Amino acid sequence: MLHPIGFIESCFREKFGTPRQGSLVPSAPARLRILPQFIPEQSLVGLSEFSHVWLVFQFHLNTNKGFRSKVHPPRLQGGTIGVFASRSPHRANPIGLTLARLKAVAGDTLLLEGMDLVNGTPILDIKPYIPACDRPARPRVGWVDRCRAPRLKVEFSRSALAGLEKVVPRRERAQVKRLIAGSLSHDPRNPRDRSQLRPEKELAFFVLHYDAYFHIKDGRAVVSRITAADEAARGRPPLAPGLL
Amino acid sequence: MLHPIGFIESCFREKFGTPRQGSLVPSAPARLRILPQFIPEQSLVGLSEFSHVWLVFQFHLNTNKGFRSKVHPPRLQGGTIGVFASRSPHRANPIGLTLARLKAVAGDTLLLEGMDLVNGTPILDIKPYIPACDRPARPRVGWVDRCRAPRLKVEFSRSALAGLEKVVPRRERAQVKRLIAGSLSHDPRNPRDRSQLRPEKELAFFVLHYDAYFHIKDGRAVVSRITAADEAARGRPPLAPGLL
Repeated sequence: MLHPIGFIESCFREKFGTPRQGSLVPSAPARLRILPQFIPEQSLVGLSEFSHVWLVFQFHLNTNKGFRSKVHPPRLQGGTIGVFASRSPHRANPIGLTLARLKAVAGDTLLLEGMDLVNGTPILDIKPYIPACDRPARPRVGWVDRCRAPRLKVEFSRSALAGLEKVVPRRERAQVKRLIAGSLSHDPRNPRDRSQLRPEKELAFFVLHYDAYFHIKDGRAVVSRITAADEAARGRPPLAPGLL
Repeated sequence: MLHPIGFIESCFREKFGTPRQGSLVPSAPARLRILPQFIPEQSLVGLSEFSHVWLVFQFHLNTNKGFRSKVHPPRLQGGTIGVFASRSPHRANPIGLTLARLKAVAGDTLLLEGMDLVNGTPILDIKPYIPACDRPARPRVGWVDRCRAPRLKVEFSRSALAGLEKVVPRRERAQVKRLIAGSLSHDPRNPRDRSQLRPEKELAFFVLHYDAYFHIKDGRAVVSRITAADEAARGRPPLAPGLL
């Protein structure tokens, strides 16, 4: 029986658009408040001296429950690999591992950066990053290095910039723009979803309190509109203000 | 509900004497056979190209069930730290994380090295080590680096060497000796267990199929005897031959 020690608060509100690795959008902010029954005033003592932490989390958004021995990582563009040679969410046990930069510990809350978790993800454990345990001398990397994902050029249309001005408070605009550009530059589309791949298809992702609409064509992502999201209608876990 | 994908086969047969980090005794061998229901002929495809893997495991030997917000890591010599600033086994969720060197994949079995797990530990997941996700640029490390554990000098008595010759097959002797020396050099004693700290106290640890008896005094560990362990009487998970 697993007990979440807290739930991540992240600018990424849905799976679609959430970076596939924490390092892809290094400025993406997140918070983790430790539930009172895990006595944060004691259990976090000493943590703030570490610059990075492992978050052990639950893949709570997995829809297919059965075990799949082979997976289709996006950067294999339709190819398959054994699930244990991947970091895919579809695993024998729905336990994920991600490294985040720890900016500070404020009371019962970790202030984090560069994280690939969706808002509301249940966190099972925090472990400090300790190079002596976690940093092999000369690692050799398999298929991941051979299949570098292409980067997209990201552009904002005039109406997207107008939307940004209209719905995002002034002091948050630059960062919201950076988050959208960071996420889109790594192509959030699923290469196995043909409807997403159609160049005329308008896609959108839900970031912070906004919807960013875009098209992807010829290696460019063009953001066409930015609007205030109808959060209640989305039925996603809420996100308290003040994350940026 | 968690499902072990296999159980580690390790030369370390009990908690006492098992290294506290995989990197401490880098030559320590281990094997992991994936259970047939996890379809190793598919789920391991592509893994052999990686030099290192994360093992996500269950801390199955934890005796105290309750959550403890502060822990006493051995190298703090009686001092305490928040559990989330430590890699202690006594966590909110009994999930551990260790990095191992992957020597080879042979059919359904991973051949591993440099691992800190006790024989029989249930493994929940294997994830490839991917530097782009797992290797921060300039990590800052907390208390762990300030409190370097002292190293012990390890010596073998004449009767220990005679025991080694008597009970260990010739081709395994050098490695068994190296395993014993490696484990003892990091002082397996619990600094909070006064009876273990008495210099006249004879201690023993169970490695491979043997018991290694020793004393620790004045920064030296002296191995006094090496005998064949009465495995049946120990009631530990069995270890098939051929690990070394």
